[in-house]
Amino acid sequence: MITQLPTPGFSFELLATLGHARAGILHTPRGAIETPVFMPVGTAGTVKAMTADELRAPPIDAKIILGNTYHLYLRPGLEVMELAGGLHRFAAWDRPILTDSGGFQVFSLSGINQKDDDGVTFQSHIDGSKHRLTPEVSMNIQRVLGSDIAMCFDECPPGDADQAIHDRALARTTAWAKRCRESPRATGQALFGIVQGGVDTGKRLAHAEAITSLDFDGHALGGLAVGEDIAETYRILDEVAHQLPADKPRYLMGVGTPADLERGIAAGIDMFDCVMPTRNARNGYLFSSSEPHRPSAALPAGGKPRPSSGRVNIANAANRTDLGPIDRACPCWTCATHSRAYLRHLYVAKEILYARLATLHNLTFYARHVRAIRDRILADGRRV
Amino acid sequence: MITQLPTPGFSFELLATLGHARAGILHTPRGAIETPVFMPVGTAGTVKAMTADELRAPPIDAKIILGNTYHLYLRPGLEVMELAGGLHRFAAWDRPILTDSGGFQVFSLSGINQKDDDGVTFQSHIDGSKHRLTPEVSMNIQRVLGSDIAMCFDECPPGDADQAIHDRALARTTAWAKRCRESPRATGQALFGIVQGGVDTGKRLAHAEAITSLDFDGHALGGLAVGEDIAETYRILDEVAHQLPADKPRYLMGVGTPADLERGIAAGIDMFDCVMPTRNARNGYLFSSSEPHRPSAALPAGGKPRPSSGRVNIANAANRTDLGPIDRACPCWTCATHSRAYLRHLYVAKEILYARLATLHNLTFYARHVRAIRDRILADGRRV
Repeated sequence: MITQLPTPGFSFELLATLGHARAGILHTPRGAIETPVFMPVGTAGTVKAMTADELRAPPIDAKIILGNTYHLYLRPGLEVMELAGGLHRFAAWDRPILTDSGGFQVFSLSGINQKDDDGVTFQSHIDGSKHRLTPEVSMNIQRVLGSDIAMCFDECPPGDADQAIHDRALARTTAWAKRCRESPRATGQALFGIVQGGVDTGKRLAHAEAITSLDFDGHALGGLAVGEDIAETYRILDEVAHQLPADKPRYLMGVGTPADLERGIAAGIDMFDCVMPTRNARNGYLFSSSEPHRPSAALPAGGKPRPSSGRVNIANAANRTDLGPIDRACPCWTCATHSRAYLRHLYVAKEILYARLATLHNLTFYARHVRAIRDRILADGRRV
Repeated sequence: MITQLPTPGFSFELLATLGHARAGILHTPRGAIETPVFMPVGTAGTVKAMTADELRAPPIDAKIILGNTYHLYLRPGLEVMELAGGLHRFAAWDRPILTDSGGFQVFSLSGINQKDDDGVTFQSHIDGSKHRLTPEVSMNIQRVLGSDIAMCFDECPPGDADQAIHDRALARTTAWAKRCRESPRATGQALFGIVQGGVDTGKRLAHAEAITSLDFDGHALGGLAVGEDIAETYRILDEVAHQLPADKPRYLMGVGTPADLERGIAAGIDMFDCVMPTRNARNGYLFSSSEPHRPSAALPAGGKPRPSSGRVNIANAANRTDLGPIDRACPCWTCATHSRAYLRHLYVAKEILYARLATLHNLTFYARHVRAIRDRILADGRRV
C-alpha cells in the first residue's frame, strides 16, 4: 500500500505490520529508505569520525543521516552553506538528510535571552554571539541546507516545568507548526510536524490531533526520553504512537538504546535518531551481545523493557589481554580485523583510530539491530 | 646489482644512481620496499588517524611503517605484545615495520634519572614509573615487537652539549652498537647501526668507520635536524651520506620536510621517517604545490635548499569559502571528495574526520613526492 505524501516525490509504502509494528519504505527524490530505520547523527556536517563512504558501505549502509540546524547555522554558517549549494554537496553525502529545526539545541545548549510567541533569542554556545530563531528563520536555514526532510520549529519545555508553561509551549508549537507549513522550502524538501505533550496522554493525543490536521509529510514525537522515567516514555509510546496517521512515517526524536528502538518499533514508530551509538563509541562503550541482533520475544507486545544489549566497556582491565573481537557475530571491519586488546590500547592512548573503529562498530550494531527487527516484521507480520 | 645483507632473507638491490642519489629495492621476508622510501610513523601501534587498509592502498601504498619502541614498551607493554605475537599481529599490519631503539624518546621525552655506560634509567612520561633501558633491554623489546628492522640503542646528546659529552656519547654509542649486534633477535629481523657525531664531519666519518665495521644490515644517520642550522644538516648529509657503504641501505632518522627529503636523496640516502606529514596534518598544515611533486632541478647537485613545497594553512579565512580541493593535482580521496571549505569547517569544529582527511592527504603528498624523485632517478640515472 503506497500513500503519496503532500510533498511531490515523497511517498510512504507500507509493506507489513506485526501488532503496531510496521515495515515499509519511505520513498524520497534522493532514494528509498527502508523503515524502520535508524538515522546516524551528523551534528556538524559529519557523523563524527566517519567518512561518507563508510556510512554508505555495508554493513552500515545508512540510507539517511541527520544534520543539526542549530550547529550548522552557527558554524560554518549560512553564507558558506549557500555558496556550497547545501549540506549534501558541502559534506559529499548524496543520500537523504533529515535536519532538525534547531529548537531542541537552542533550549538545551545555548543561553536563552528571550522567548516569546514569535521565537527565541539566544546566545551561541561557541562564542556568545546573539541570534534569533523563529519558525521562519529555522525553515529558511533548512531551505538553504537543502535537507530532504525538514522539521518544524518547536518549543521543548524542561520536563519538570509546570502545567501553565507546558500548555503555553504546546500552543506555541502548534502555532509555529502552522507558520513552518507556510514557509518556503527547497525543491524536494518534505516537512514533518512534531507532537509534544510530555508524559500526559491526554495532552499528547490532543496535540497530535492539532498537528496531524496540518497535512505534514510525517509526524514526530518530540520531548520524550528527556529525563522522565523510562516506563513513562514507554507508556506514552504505547498509547500515542499507533494513533498517529498510519499512512505517514512516524519518527521518535532522539531515542535511544537498542531496547528503546525495539520498544518504539513495537509501538508503531518508523524512524529514529540518537547520538548514543556514536557518542558511546567515543566514550569507550561498545555494543555487543551474546545473541546479537535477535529481537526479543516481546515484540510486538508491550511487556517489560528488554534488558539492554550487552555492552563492552573497552577500558576494563580484562580487555587488556583479550585477543578476541568486540563481538564475534559482528561483520564490521573493526571486529573482522582488530582485537579488544588493540582497541583498549588505542582507547587508553587516546588515539584517533580508536574513535573510528569504535564508531564503525556501534553504527553497524544499530543498523543490524533495526534491520533484524524489520526482517522479523516482514517474515512474521501481515502483508499490507 | 643485488647484495645479500647479513641477516638471512634481506638483500639490497641497487637499480640506478644519479649523482649520489640511488634508486633500489630493499628485499625483506615480509616484502619488497622500493627505495628511496618515506616511512609513515606509527608511534603507538597506529599511524595516527589511519587504518592499515588506508596505508596499504594507493595512493599512499606504504611499504613499511615505523613503530616506537619507547612508546610501545610503556603502553600497551611487553606482556600484551608477547601475547599478541608481536606488533604486526597486534596492529593488523602485514608489511614490514622498522622499530627505533627507544633511545631518542628516552632522551627527549622522559625524565632521566641516571645515565651510565651500561644504559639509562628514566621515568615514564605517562605515569612517572621508573624503567631502565640498556642495549640488551632495547633489543629484547624489539625482539618481542618482532619488527623487520631493529635499530641499535644509541645515546643522543643535546645539540649544544660540550665536546667531552659528545665524545663520551660517541664512544658509548659504538660500545652499545656492539652489544646490540650480539643480542638475540627475532627470526627475520635485520639490524641497522646508527652513526652519530653531530655536525662535525671528522667525528661523523670516524664514527661511521667504527659502526660500518660491525656488519649491520644497514646504516642510519642519527642526531641530525635536532635543532642545528639546516645548512649544517645539509653539509653533513653532503659530506657523509655517500661515504656510508654503497651496498647497504642508508637511513636518515627523523627527517624531514619535502625539501629535506629531496636533499637527503641527492646526498645518497635511501630511507626516511618523520612525524611531519601526520603531525602537520592534525595541526592544520596541508602540503600542496602548484607544481606538485616535480623534483627540483637541484637534484642531484648540492645547490641551495629548494624552497619548501606549498603549504596550506587550512585555518586561513580564505579557505572558509574555497570550494576547491587542497591540491588539484592530488589523487587522494580527500582531494577528490572534499573542499577546503569543508576541511576548514571540520578543523575549526575540531571534528575527528578532519584529522583523517588531512593525514590521508599529507601522507599521499609525501609518498608521491618520494616516488616522483625515485622515478626521476630511474629515468635519468645510470643503471647499475
